[in-house]
Amino acid sequence: MDTTYLLDILGNENRRNILNLLSYRPCYVTEISEELKVSPKAIIDHLKILEEAGLVESFHDQHGRKYYQIANNVMIEVSISPISFQVEVTRVEAGADEQKMLRDRFHGDRISGDVVERLKYLCEEAQRLAQTSLELRETQRNVQNMLSEVTSMSIEIINEVAADQIEAEILYLLVKGPVSFEEIAGRLNIPLPVARTELARLMKKGLVTYRTGQWSIA
Amino acid sequence: MDTTYLLDILGNENRRNILNLLSYRPCYVTEISEELKVSPKAIIDHLKILEEAGLVESFHDQHGRKYYQIANNVMIEVSISPISFQVEVTRVEAGADEQKMLRDRFHGDRISGDVVERLKYLCEEAQRLAQTSLELRETQRNVQNMLSEVTSMSIEIINEVAADQIEAEILYLLVKGPVSFEEIAGRLNIPLPVARTELARLMKKGLVTYRTGQWSIA
Repeated sequence: MDTTYLLDILGNENRRNILNLLSYRPCYVTEISEELKVSPKAIIDHLKILEEAGLVESFHDQHGRKYYQIANNVMIEVSISPISFQVEVTRVEAGADEQKMLRDRFHGDRISGDVVERLKYLCEEAQRLAQTSLELRETQRNVQNMLSEVTSMSIEIINEVAADQIEAEILYLLVKGPVSFEEIAGRLNIPLPVARTELARLMKKGLVTYRTGQWSIA
Repeated sequence: MDTTYLLDILGNENRRNILNLLSYRPCYVTEISEELKVSPKAIIDHLKILEEAGLVESFHDQHGRKYYQIANNVMIEVSISPISFQVEVTRVEAGADEQKMLRDRFHGDRISGDVVERLKYLCEEAQRLAQTSLELRETQRNVQNMLSEVTSMSIEIINEVAADQIEAEILYLLVKGPVSFEEIAGRLNIPLPVARTELARLMKKGLVTYRTGQWSIA
């Protein structure tokens, strides 16, 4: 599935409200419909879409009533800057080895057989991990801050040294990393001969360099 | 603005395509329309929405032609798990102090006055920061993995110890952190007296505890 398709799915307020509701407890259709004041028919359609995307799943309770719950751990990160637009989707699933290690760790000697104590311990671990996650997000924010500033300084210099708009656009592209000749022409929507002439000119000025099929800032 | 509103905006493929295009170069309406094969009228509407959300901005070139470009650094993180649905939006803007520090750093003694060398240096910095960002994302993924595993183990134990569905739902809620009495009743959509009875029963079993207005796992 195209990862950005998840953004289509989350771009609907009712579907976000359903996910929010299910994050508190598994629910059946009528319950969701009443809570969100949306027709059961519409709820069923939304649940179908969420189910197909692997975000929710259903099960039947002992009375045969069908419940829905969130199926997966998914992280979606969108980062937008003047020279980049990125969508990253991570389906968080611990591998078999990782799972075993974690289970050994939490079921190991350090925890008594007492169920309540084990739950309390897990609970503390969960809160500690949530805190670490918050701190990582903060660090990520700082790194993105610096990246954004470095990028805008690069753009300033590029606007200073570029002879025209096409030169500037080629240089913006190269700031992000080495790029092939065809990609430059494709990205900037310019004919190959034009790209060739422009790159030759930039090379002459000592602004770009070419190595193993890739162009980069000199 | 409601932060989740950004998800509505990004939940449209044409708008995502516009952002992607603008991340390569500033564009004018006709250009976007031709590239994406979408009518100029529709492009103008999308640009208006993106502009109102502070994601794009326009400027006029020397010939008076109106160009659009991405205005801001924004990060949107959505995390979905069986017991949580969170949307975090960070508008990345370096504060005045931070900006000054960064500028001093990059304009300082360590870099010669040569513009090309400065651009090259910034470019290396940008790629280094992008790499750090990737590594942080990977670490975040691992933390989320562990959190997800700890959570699913807590859910297993809860399903073992809870006498009924309501008890289980209360305990799921408390795994995420201490919660007030009113929040429990509100979240689970149960009357206050029912919540009171349930919590008293869980307390008697030694599963929950109450301190300074908040309930938590014992």
